[in-house]
Amino acid sequence: MTPEQFRQYGHQLIDLIADYRQSVGERPVMAQVQPGYLKAALPQGAPRQGEPFEAILADVDKLLMPGLSHWQHPDFYGYFPSNGTLSSVLGDFLSTGLGVLGLSWQSSPALSELEETTLDWLRQLLGLGDQWSGVIQDTASTSTLVALICARERATDHAQVRGGLQGQARPLIVYVSAHAHSSVDKAALLAGFGRDNIRLIATDEQFAMRPEALEAAIAKDLVAGNQPCAVIATTGTTTTTALDPLRAIGEIAQANQLWLHVDSAMAGSAMILPECRWMWDGIELADSVVVNAHKWLGVAFDCSIYYVRDPQHLIRVMSTNPSYLQSAVDGEVKNLRDWGIPLGRRFRALKLWFMLRSEGVEALQQRLRRDLDNARWLAEQVEATAGWELLAPVQLQTLCIRHRPAGLDDEALDRHTRAWAERLNASGDAYVTPATLNGRWMVRVSVGALPTEREHVQRLWQRLQAVVA
Amino acid sequence: MTPEQFRQYGHQLIDLIADYRQSVGERPVMAQVQPGYLKAALPQGAPRQGEPFEAILADVDKLLMPGLSHWQHPDFYGYFPSNGTLSSVLGDFLSTGLGVLGLSWQSSPALSELEETTLDWLRQLLGLGDQWSGVIQDTASTSTLVALICARERATDHAQVRGGLQGQARPLIVYVSAHAHSSVDKAALLAGFGRDNIRLIATDEQFAMRPEALEAAIAKDLVAGNQPCAVIATTGTTTTTALDPLRAIGEIAQANQLWLHVDSAMAGSAMILPECRWMWDGIELADSVVVNAHKWLGVAFDCSIYYVRDPQHLIRVMSTNPSYLQSAVDGEVKNLRDWGIPLGRRFRALKLWFMLRSEGVEALQQRLRRDLDNARWLAEQVEATAGWELLAPVQLQTLCIRHRPAGLDDEALDRHTRAWAERLNASGDAYVTPATLNGRWMVRVSVGALPTEREHVQRLWQRLQAVVA
Ligand SMILES: Cc1ncc(COP(=O)(O)O)c(C=O)c1O
Ligand SMILES: Cc1ncc(COP(=O)(O)O)c(C=O)c1O
Repeated sequence: MTPEQFRQYGHQLIDLIADYRQSVGERPVMAQVQPGYLKAALPQGAPRQGEPFEAILADVDKLLMPGLSHWQHPDFYGYFPSNGTLSSVLGDFLSTGLGVLGLSWQSSPALSELEETTLDWLRQLLGLGDQWSGVIQDTASTSTLVALICARERATDHAQVRGGLQGQARPLIVYVSAHAHSSVDKAALLAGFGRDNIRLIATDEQFAMRPEALEAAIAKDLVAGNQPCAVIATTGTTTTTALDPLRAIGEIAQANQLWLHVDSAMAGSAMILPECRWMWDGIELADSVVVNAHKWLGVAFDCSIYYVRDPQHLIRVMSTNPSYLQSAVDGEVKNLRDWGIPLGRRFRALKLWFMLRSEGVEALQQRLRRDLDNARWLAEQVEATAGWELLAPVQLQTLCIRHRPAGLDDEALDRHTRAWAERLNASGDAYVTPATLNGRWMVRVSVGALPTEREHVQRLWQRLQAVVA
Repeated sequence: MTPEQFRQYGHQLIDLIADYRQSVGERPVMAQVQPGYLKAALPQGAPRQGEPFEAILADVDKLLMPGLSHWQHPDFYGYFPSNGTLSSVLGDFLSTGLGVLGLSWQSSPALSELEETTLDWLRQLLGLGDQWSGVIQDTASTSTLVALICARERATDHAQVRGGLQGQARPLIVYVSAHAHSSVDKAALLAGFGRDNIRLIATDEQFAMRPEALEAAIAKDLVAGNQPCAVIATTGTTTTTALDPLRAIGEIAQANQLWLHVDSAMAGSAMILPECRWMWDGIELADSVVVNAHKWLGVAFDCSIYYVRDPQHLIRVMSTNPSYLQSAVDGEVKNLRDWGIPLGRRFRALKLWFMLRSEGVEALQQRLRRDLDNARWLAEQVEATAGWELLAPVQLQTLCIRHRPAGLDDEALDRHTRAWAERLNASGDAYVTPATLNGRWMVRVSVGALPTEREHVQRLWQRLQAVVA
């Protein structure tokens, strides 16, 4: 494809995307296809000769569109918002179009420096002190893995240069809340700690980690001759947006030389609102924190921001220095390859920069406040209506709800809940996520998709009441 | 930004990128800026109010462009080609524009199924048998980390469910060639094996791993009571594109129950050429292989393809199954979150699909053959010219060259080499990568950027001869 053809097809694609965003609300939110539908429709192998671009676009429309669940849809309340603001989309387009890589500062200086600058802007917006340095990772899953590897290396004084985790005499222990995201458990296993060395700490009635339980678990491990290593606290758990008490946990971590990693993948976005900052009171006690700018905040996926207090430690764990990547300025610059797992890096700061500049901070704050208001409004309806219940405090934009008809036992209630959630999703009118809480099914409604206004939430409430009937 | 504004600005951006690709050859290849240039030019914080899109684009031109080293430039011979074909760029645009995520099959069925299908197409093109299953990772660094974690878990029979690497009695050992990429070493350290448990295996005069040396190292470890765990072989090392002998290594791996991971990040692209397939003769003995479709092959970064022979093992190592991600069809579908570290996933198959369909296989093969021819032509000039030397066989598209004026000792020769490479890069006329080989500096010329034709390589040869004078 020549640049002139790219120009022509690119304009077509821009129109396709603009039309899509304008009309996505008319599509069923959740894909209505069966497993294997696309594999069966596609050829068995790649074409020998190139095909006209029009043929590809026709297949996008005919074959792909029906197989999408639409995250940018006004009636999307599934999982969590993964907003791709159109300004950030353009920033991402520029990244892909330029096709430059950040292996080292020299391999594209602007890539490294814009990342440093925009993450410093974001740090200020989140109310983090200037002791924090940031880097863009792909996901919170990766950020948390990086954090746990760093915790492991600090606890063993960089045992990696000797026997690695294999040289460790006393087992290193990781503490997580029972409501931590599945990626935390996964990260601990991938980092090699082992299932037996992960402690699930009990939570209170609001699903937040109980600091006394953490303290007790640490004490027990010390008696057993184990070495407490890291604790992961969550600001905004996935199921209920519960807030682990960071200050209390941080003090325990400091007293016991534990690495404190804070998973604010979801709720971190809310920290651009001063009125929400109490939620991570104590954050300065953490060693690392992850905020997914690609969730509610609105930077097109992937843009997970990982802040650390001790970048030198991160660099020591992650750095490599082959001759072909050395340059005369290495002493003066940030080589971002030493801040994470991958060597090659996209120019991801562009999408953050485009969004912050094009929207401005106040508009971002306003949008998040709109979503908080909408979630509160819906919570009020649920609370005020007989037969409905809220299962967790609505501190942010996610509701855990249940419809409880009279006379159902637990099993029957579970069946009822799953059935109406599935009916709603299958209707294509709205997309919600069934999940378990205290062992029973309920439905998560995560407000905050980009185009979701009050009218949509009002319509959702009507649909909820209709679908359970 | 509304969809209508996006339409308008999107068209501007398409034109900007088309113009950039058309005229990039007129820019200096390597950025000519000093450390800190951009940080100093940008404001200290994010704007409160949104700014006009024109202001952002003006800064792209004024502030960013001078700070880029241009990987899509016809005179780019640095590092390795990282080609972003314009058809794949459009596929990536669609991915970002749609903004759908692949957490699970249900969260966007087309995303999972198109990845499965296009990776099967690519598998056939690479000449891999149908026992291989693929998944897109961000980079080879991550793919190799995944491979080593899987090797570790297989060797300990999923010790992760018990004591992890910490429960391991006999140290697990990893074998790599002294010419393996730095990401291999890094992956072994991140997976917790420990520096002491990484064996550097000697190479032959062509920089390929010596199978007898591997065998001897394994024997020595067995005597010492260690447990050989994994060997990483490279098809196309970074410095010289050396080819480790896969069949011999694979047989040793099988005899000793080692995991064989093959790093074909760079040379894997050449496997779409039947005449290059001898290079990974024995590949069927491997457990996992990584091919960076985002390098020479031309899929816009990031698109690293990881193939495994035993997907069930990968899933067992990587899977999580929280209630909120469960769906009724889970038994019938591939949930790609269980094939790697991140939970959230972009729709990356789109860029591979767009490229394969738009270009067709024959055009891709033709482009790679063009680059092999160009590299061979340049190698012939170097060999035929007094004062110049080739330091490694040119089996693919990378040359290791040196200009050797009479009468210089080793130190002086190193200074001469680094000086002319720096002069050339600073001129902006071409971008090459100095690196060490056998402890002495030489210059890598990596042919294969998308717009590089014979005329450019001819001009490079003139420039090389001029710059050393
Ligand atoms: C609290 C929390 N942590 C981590 C994640 C994982 O995010 P990612 O897909 O970026 O790995 C999520 C979202 O799924 C989350 O809600
Ligand atoms: C042989 C080899 N392996 C691995 C890599 C790392 O690639 P990535 O940036 O995808 O991690 C490279 C390129 O730098 C390479 O040449």
